[in-house]
Amino acid sequence: MTTTIAASQARPVSRDLPPVERRASLPAGFRAGGLAAGIKASGRPDLMLTVTTDGPAAVAAVFTPNAFAAAPVRRSRANLAATSGDARGGFGWARAVVSTSGSANAATGPAGDKDQVEVGRLVATTLGIDETHVLHLSTGIIGSRLPLAKVEAGLGRLVGELRADDGALEAAATALRTTDSVTKVATTTVDIDGVAVTVSGIAKGVGMIHPNMATMLSLVLTDAAVEPAVLYGLLRRAAARTWNQLSVDGDTSTNDTVFVLASGRAGNGPLTAGSAGARVLGSAIEAIARDLARQQAADGEGATILVTTVVRGARDDADARAVARAVISSSLVKAAAHGKDPNWGRIAGAAGNAVVASEAVLEAAGLEPEAAASRAGQPADLDPDRLRISIAGYPVFDGTQGGPLDFDRAGARAAMNAPELVIELDLGLGDGTGEAFGCDLTEAYVIENSEYTT
Amino acid sequence: MTTTIAASQARPVSRDLPPVERRASLPAGFRAGGLAAGIKASGRPDLMLTVTTDGPAAVAAVFTPNAFAAAPVRRSRANLAATSGDARGGFGWARAVVSTSGSANAATGPAGDKDQVEVGRLVATTLGIDETHVLHLSTGIIGSRLPLAKVEAGLGRLVGELRADDGALEAAATALRTTDSVTKVATTTVDIDGVAVTVSGIAKGVGMIHPNMATMLSLVLTDAAVEPAVLYGLLRRAAARTWNQLSVDGDTSTNDTVFVLASGRAGNGPLTAGSAGARVLGSAIEAIARDLARQQAADGEGATILVTTVVRGARDDADARAVARAVISSSLVKAAAHGKDPNWGRIAGAAGNAVVASEAVLEAAGLEPEAAASRAGQPADLDPDRLRISIAGYPVFDGTQGGPLDFDRAGARAAMNAPELVIELDLGLGDGTGEAFGCDLTEAYVIENSEYTT
Repeated sequence: MTTTIAASQARPVSRDLPPVERRASLPAGFRAGGLAAGIKASGRPDLMLTVTTDGPAAVAAVFTPNAFAAAPVRRSRANLAATSGDARGGFGWARAVVSTSGSANAATGPAGDKDQVEVGRLVATTLGIDETHVLHLSTGIIGSRLPLAKVEAGLGRLVGELRADDGALEAAATALRTTDSVTKVATTTVDIDGVAVTVSGIAKGVGMIHPNMATMLSLVLTDAAVEPAVLYGLLRRAAARTWNQLSVDGDTSTNDTVFVLASGRAGNGPLTAGSAGARVLGSAIEAIARDLARQQAADGEGATILVTTVVRGARDDADARAVARAVISSSLVKAAAHGKDPNWGRIAGAAGNAVVASEAVLEAAGLEPEAAASRAGQPADLDPDRLRISIAGYPVFDGTQGGPLDFDRAGARAAMNAPELVIELDLGLGDGTGEAFGCDLTEAYVIENSEYTT
Repeated sequence: MTTTIAASQARPVSRDLPPVERRASLPAGFRAGGLAAGIKASGRPDLMLTVTTDGPAAVAAVFTPNAFAAAPVRRSRANLAATSGDARGGFGWARAVVSTSGSANAATGPAGDKDQVEVGRLVATTLGIDETHVLHLSTGIIGSRLPLAKVEAGLGRLVGELRADDGALEAAATALRTTDSVTKVATTTVDIDGVAVTVSGIAKGVGMIHPNMATMLSLVLTDAAVEPAVLYGLLRRAAARTWNQLSVDGDTSTNDTVFVLASGRAGNGPLTAGSAGARVLGSAIEAIARDLARQQAADGEGATILVTTVVRGARDDADARAVARAVISSSLVKAAAHGKDPNWGRIAGAAGNAVVASEAVLEAAGLEPEAAASRAGQPADLDPDRLRISIAGYPVFDGTQGGPLDFDRAGARAAMNAPELVIELDLGLGDGTGEAFGCDLTEAYVIENSEYTT
């Protein structure tokens, strides 16, 4: 199931993003670690802790819009709201992020909420910090209770093992995993007003992944100095263009969470909203988000390849993203990708069904509303007579030339036999661009998910 | 792949519907037939014709909202608009419906439109009627041209074979099929103002089926006397509650079409919008639509069972339908259904993602806008602490009692081993009801769709 996509393989269409390396690189101002606390029956690492070294970090977050938001999501929102006054709980301050893997603590009712509060109390007590400064992540089976005794014992050990080096972040990333076949890490360094700023991310996510957000947990750390509200604006924009364009199976989980923590240790000057420095930081966050999303798509349940859809020439970016999402989410396109079938008819059919996300849905997911969207909540604008489609570099359809093109079918099939399939659509209507990330649909997905038992 | 669900198995929640029989019963005022014209390589029946016996029938239609609407869809819309002045082409008058199976005539550009016009001309000439009174259906491979010579030769033979008996309607239903494993027919008789009125339907549809509409063609015939605009209102309502609640694989095709033709031969008095008689006719159309939708779901590609989701206690019907759709469309729920896994966590997670259809999307599909919807385009209202879930009759989750229930897991698994799985959700928020129809996700679906080549 593992893939070997170079981070640079499909160039981002959205805007200039800095290059990303796939390695764990812990920014200044954090310590991290992970170990096996016995939550997972397999004995694999399942407890992750990341803490700040010098007081609270600025935090921005986006959470699942699922009505069944799990206890850790509710607790994190409440804590962020308490530290910032932001009623949505989208940003604030924190000193620690704890993650338990193996039990989602979702749909566990008031008892589950009490358990999560207890986790926060244990972390706060162990570290000697305020409980409102603890953020929560969890993933695993829905409806099962957290094994608090194991969490407590694990935390006791883990606190002593936290380190401020890259290996510690790698260990944290490993402890985030559930059935992920690979550890997901990414890092980049950008220059902000003459200061080198590092942005690094770790993530997990295999199934139940779909806009908005996913069963996916991502933690982005930076040493940038930035106010929480400004950071929130950058994250909302980046997530709308990356994680919200990620689909593995069309299901959105109860626990999806992205946190960005900024320690301020880089020493850059204040980054006001809309400033050049904030834009650079936003690009770095988007680059990390995009690369983690691609890693998550490539490692989808049962997936053998990463499928990237690139849309250009749309009426606006919102339309482009809607079309890219529709293509990437189509079971028929996904099955054709698996079969190395250059089936442009399914791509055209899926594109023709695209609906632009409504503002209410984006707002529920904490994502940037499609400010420029002329067609929020409506079918995306598409003209078959202007559409052009390429599969794995082979032009297969050109509406300006009557539609279907003659192409080297054997060559296209051979080109589809690669770790990444790129499907390109040019709508010929404007200059809107967007992309989306998914994977092929395989027998293994069905087998894995029909044999898994709660 | 075939299933043996009794038409009455899951009682409709929406309102009182008349009982339906699964047999072909041709209403007065029509002749029908079907044969093999050689469009399909397999040599199976692929050409269908239904004509009126006495002048034009009143017609209502709903079509795919896909931006890639196929040539037959565009031609039918244009003809209906020409006969009624309705700019949407949603209703009008017609004397014949022709269907070709094996070639969708979609994404074929201007040449495809010319081909479809030629089909209409052939039908009109053969029958001696006006071309604007011909309606078009087609299904099959996207991007391939219609074999006009075969259509012409087939029509020449078929016109001589048209009959006004039930066997002729059965033959028409058989010629609609593509990879359908069974012929889909349904009929009901209702009393309208003391007059017996028959409503019968034939349909096809296996894959690429999802709201709004589906790769699905349905033709409903009635001897009722009713004006086109009134009939259109009845169909829009019925389709929103039935076919729009049908999902096989999340893909909406380029060719989806439903026609309702009313010959007027039953001799009932005028049915004005909102009259008691119109309501009875609407219920009969909805009953046929619901039963055909259930047959289409049960015969989904690779499907081994029909999955029905019934939602009660929603804020309103639109919310209920959104939740039912979300559950039925979840790949994880569908895979669990296949594995006989009473996985309420996936059901709850899917329900939590429900978004109420926006008015723009429904309008694009020609469906009744959710007039009562308080949350069009927004997430459906759901409170985990009030939700109750049953699987195959086993209560598994009750938010009012803290969430997960102890239940007889082996018993539930055994009960799931049936031709129809009923998943019930009570949201505990109001009196809105809705249902949705789908199927399990199987390895066979993936294999079928990764090996199929355009």
